[in-house]
Amino acid sequence: MPRLSSRLKDLHGSPVRAMLETSLRPEVISFAGGLPAPETFEDIELAPPPRSLLQYGPTEGEPELRARIAEELAAIGLDCPPGRVMVLSGSQQGIDLVAKLCVDPGASVAVQSPAYLAALQVFRFYGARLSPIGAEGWSPGPPPALAYVNPTFQNPTGRCWSLEERAAFAELCARDDVVLFEDDPYRDLAYDPCERRPAASFVRGGSWVYQGSFSKVLAPGLRLGFLAASEDLFAPLSQLKQAADLHSSRVAQWWALRHLDDPDRAARLGRLVERYRARREAFAAALERRLGNLASWDLPPGGLFFWLRLAPGLDVQALLERAATRNVLFTPGEHFLVGPDGPGSAIRLNFSNAGEADADWGLEILGGLLREMTSDASPTQPHPA
Amino acid sequence: MPRLSSRLKDLHGSPVRAMLETSLRPEVISFAGGLPAPETFEDIELAPPPRSLLQYGPTEGEPELRARIAEELAAIGLDCPPGRVMVLSGSQQGIDLVAKLCVDPGASVAVQSPAYLAALQVFRFYGARLSPIGAEGWSPGPPPALAYVNPTFQNPTGRCWSLEERAAFAELCARDDVVLFEDDPYRDLAYDPCERRPAASFVRGGSWVYQGSFSKVLAPGLRLGFLAASEDLFAPLSQLKQAADLHSSRVAQWWALRHLDDPDRAARLGRLVERYRARREAFAAALERRLGNLASWDLPPGGLFFWLRLAPGLDVQALLERAATRNVLFTPGEHFLVGPDGPGSAIRLNFSNAGEADADWGLEILGGLLREMTSDASPTQPHPA
Repeated sequence: MPRLSSRLKDLHGSPVRAMLETSLRPEVISFAGGLPAPETFEDIELAPPPRSLLQYGPTEGEPELRARIAEELAAIGLDCPPGRVMVLSGSQQGIDLVAKLCVDPGASVAVQSPAYLAALQVFRFYGARLSPIGAEGWSPGPPPALAYVNPTFQNPTGRCWSLEERAAFAELCARDDVVLFEDDPYRDLAYDPCERRPAASFVRGGSWVYQGSFSKVLAPGLRLGFLAASEDLFAPLSQLKQAADLHSSRVAQWWALRHLDDPDRAARLGRLVERYRARREAFAAALERRLGNLASWDLPPGGLFFWLRLAPGLDVQALLERAATRNVLFTPGEHFLVGPDGPGSAIRLNFSNAGEADADWGLEILGGLLREMTSDASPTQPHPA
Repeated sequence: MPRLSSRLKDLHGSPVRAMLETSLRPEVISFAGGLPAPETFEDIELAPPPRSLLQYGPTEGEPELRARIAEELAAIGLDCPPGRVMVLSGSQQGIDLVAKLCVDPGASVAVQSPAYLAALQVFRFYGARLSPIGAEGWSPGPPPALAYVNPTFQNPTGRCWSLEERAAFAELCARDDVVLFEDDPYRDLAYDPCERRPAASFVRGGSWVYQGSFSKVLAPGLRLGFLAASEDLFAPLSQLKQAADLHSSRVAQWWALRHLDDPDRAARLGRLVERYRARREAFAAALERRLGNLASWDLPPGGLFFWLRLAPGLDVQALLERAATRNVLFTPGEHFLVGPDGPGSAIRLNFSNAGEADADWGLEILGGLLREMTSDASPTQPHPA
């Protein structure tokens, strides 16, 4: 037997990735992933790139793109010179790099609970002890090394922090020497007015990493994201990026720059948000129709997900298995949870990928299964003694 | 101060990457990197990709590309089903994934010495104790967890193992439960007849990872490589890939597949090899002219590098600093070395990137500096007592 790393005991595949292949089959209605609507790719122009981009490029990314991202960040309130902006091979890579930077075995990492499951997967692999961030901040004990948050349209709940919450959290991190790691892939998918200024912009004298993604407003298949970081963290992050993949695809970077410079960009984003807002409305109406008395939820002000609370004790895994045989997929809530709450009985539903008729049909199936499971469950209740 | 990972004490930037920006300036003659000749990009067709590739894709890569790579591997003697082929975001990523798989702090990793510096960088970051692979195999003590080798046109020496060496090494790894990690980016750049069958193909009942790259025969800017692995290692590698970047650029994968299926591919590779063989010849002649009595070297039968041994005790770092002021770069040999030999006084020179006239001019400068440094050094010799 080969001698493998002890980290592998905490290596688990993503349940969402495991469902991806099935979810791409045309007969399947998937609420499982965070996939953009394919129609949103139709107006993306993939012009032939210059051949000079076929050579090796700089680790931190193309200088023009880094400068352009720095301008974008300044416009949303985060001042960061281009020299502290790094292009990533998707923002999943940023999570891996920051975990390498901060997480030794046994290190404490604070996260929202529920939180993005593929971030939890990475932190656990590096040996983190995860603790939930509560209304009062850290769990009892010494402060964590790292705090990972989605203040804007959180995955999976859709929640958005107020300005006061952002400022207070940044201050808490700086006070306790906690690296604030803000993951912000959904910020442009805003359907209702919300505070969206990066929490990282409120950090004074502390250490922070802010990251964004081109996957939600441009195209995930390009695998492109970016990070900005406080001065103390940028140089080691850059060396970690170098060791991870030398640099990101230069062609993808060139397309991303063209996208940022496209005069039609604002109008295109407007169309995208309008499409997803309409899907959110239709989804909320279908939820009301099909699961009105079977679940509860809040209308997400942005992002791509509804977070549904089902009857306590409901077997969510059994629901998923039954739904899958009917070609409907979703993500069980337990994969997002941290801490002592137990598995719970929530589920995450994506509303961006399926069309309105499909979504209604998929929710009708889920509603029917939930009703079946509730009546299944009744006869197996123990008889009163 | 933030609490960062203790791994960072073994995090070092690559000296080659540090020189990259300078090396791309037109007035600089760089022998430092492993950059393809830009002329070799001229016949690459970057057709507009289908928009369906803009969606998220499978972690392990596009099924058509994985199947096609499996065919290629079978043709060179490595039988591996497509289900155990994974597309990488450049083969640097494979090194990171295999290190995550095998290297706990204190784990022993055996490498050739000299060896590819960015592999050493990654293994050290994960806490490996590196030991050189000698003619008799492992250093004294328990066998290593992992052995990293370039049997074909080794970076930096250009050496190529015989069939007997490949088979014996595979047997040694299997016998001692050592994961054999074969990195094979240069195999197609063969100028003289050499054994090139993968060492991994000789492993019976042991664990192995074999990886290749599209950077040397197609284009590094796409950041695309691939690995194949024994059955026991593939599933955890796949989960590690998922956590690292979800999947590699689908557009780059589509171009790579078109390249593999291109009817002109063999002729194109022939032209590429011919160009580099001619550069090798011219480089060898220029070395003879400019450094004939100042260094020794072997003619590399393939790959991209000459490995030069200079006078013992020569200050290679001082040579590099002087050369850089004259716009000539190379990579000091010490970055490739492991074990008790000390820094040595070797240098690695790339011959694929610079044109013949530039290469001759750069070598003339190096020769002049070496002569200066030798005469500089003489007066500072202590006088005999």
